Amino acid sequence: MKIARFSTSGSIRFGILDGDDLVVLGGDPMFQGLDTTGERVPLAQATLLAPSIPRSKVVGVGRNYVDHVQEMGGDTPPSEPLLFLKPNTSVVGPGDTIVLPRQSSQVDFEGELAIVIGSIAKNVTADRAHEVIFGYTVANDVTARDLQRSDDQWTRAKGFDTFCPIGPFVETDFDVASGTITTTVNGEVKQSGPLTDMVHGVEDIVAYASSVFTLLPGDLILTGTPAGVGPIRAGDVVEVTISGIGSLSNPVAAPRS
Amino acid sequence: MKIARFSTSGSIRFGILDGDDLVVLGGDPMFQGLDTTGERVPLAQATLLAPSIPRSKVVGVGRNYVDHVQEMGGDTPPSEPLLFLKPNTSVVGPGDTIVLPRQSSQVDFEGELAIVIGSIAKNVTADRAHEVIFGYTVANDVTARDLQRSDDQWTRAKGFDTFCPIGPFVETDFDVASGTITTTVNGEVKQSGPLTDMVHGVEDIVAYASSVFTLLPGDLILTGTPAGVGPIRAGDVVEVTISGIGSLSNPVAAPRS
Repeated sequence: MKIARFSTSGSIRFGILDGDDLVVLGGDPMFQGLDTTGERVPLAQATLLAPSIPRSKVVGVGRNYVDHVQEMGGDTPPSEPLLFLKPNTSVVGPGDTIVLPRQSSQVDFEGELAIVIGSIAKNVTADRAHEVIFGYTVANDVTARDLQRSDDQWTRAKGFDTFCPIGPFVETDFDVASGTITTTVNGEVKQSGPLTDMVHGVEDIVAYASSVFTLLPGDLILTGTPAGVGPIRAGDVVEVTISGIGSLSNPVAAPRS
Repeated sequence: MKIARFSTSGSIRFGILDGDDLVVLGGDPMFQGLDTTGERVPLAQATLLAPSIPRSKVVGVGRNYVDHVQEMGGDTPPSEPLLFLKPNTSVVGPGDTIVLPRQSSQVDFEGELAIVIGSIAKNVTADRAHEVIFGYTVANDVTARDLQRSDDQWTRAKGFDTFCPIGPFVETDFDVASGTITTTVNGEVKQSGPLTDMVHGVEDIVAYASSVFTLLPGDLILTGTPAGVGPIRAGDVVEVTISGIGSLSNPVAAPRS
């Protein structure tokens, strides 16, 4: 089931994708279930928004694909998931503009699978991780590569407003083992590979993160990016596609004056 | 003015400290102003809670006192504020227990002044930073020192649940230039010095952070710790005092089974 958060004429609602329509839900399905109102909205008339609202945090996992570790000049990936945080203020939705910050001269895309947490989770074991996963969406872990290198911490490089596009849907029945991820810039393929290339799998990542923080409904965990990362520039359109979930497309713009 | 968030018999309210009483407010003063209900609650009958609820994030500033940089083996502090994030799930209040995580064998206290953001802030200049500061409180930037050293990022080391005690009050009229900070463990003084020893002052920090992230009402910025950091162990009581704000005292407990 693909769930969207969308607006029509300023009102924000949730809906389930059914063909070319969204079947409108009575409320946020994470908290209010899947009862429908009976109304159908054509997808073409809806503006899709970020499908999840992190109440607390976006957790990232660094260096989680061997080929990306190597392209960044590293040797072997870390033996445990390398966690970092992006603030919820960095989250934007499909079609929203990624605004390049004036502090950076190299901003990179990083296409990633995002886990959407569905319930309060602390010290969850890997074999029960599925119980706290609401679904999956597509994310772009936008990163100011120059600042990532110059700052001691990745917080600034990954934390700017608009640096976490997610969407277009949350897929609640996604099979990670059969998924592939592709990132294009202006239609040219930059990243492409199976999600099974992850070093630490989604269940292990949820278990690990929940051994550190309490995860809250709506929190996101970005699971790392494969090889092929590269810069985006004003005027580009970057699109991350995960088979079985959808395509997340975002234009890129110069710093606001 | 000192503002507390407190509970009595399970109901959570805000109040202004007046002698030994809290003058009860009609709502969260950050959003609903300072109208009082007329009721007074003796401070001794109130359980004080974390006085601010970060809707988004706790921003930390690393290496912001020269003497602390030196005790950590560094040379000079960074020329710009070194930002990191603690999740809002790490926040607890005065008297709440700091729970040592089983992953660490050295957890340190770090007494700090915390800025409480009062309004949505983006690209605020230093000379206007005071307009978005609601007030100040006392914080303990609890840090798993061994994990800070072994992990590439500080996220895990500083992000555990209970690793961000704050309180007891938000002081809205605090004069940073005249404040001193003192940290004790079991009554023994470990950190003591003037807040003016900060490398980057509060206005510059707010300007810098708001050039990266949008700051939201209730967000906190921890301004760094002076020299004297050291370990806390199960059974200890750690207390951070800032003159003019108050004392934040927290017991320390072993990992929960």
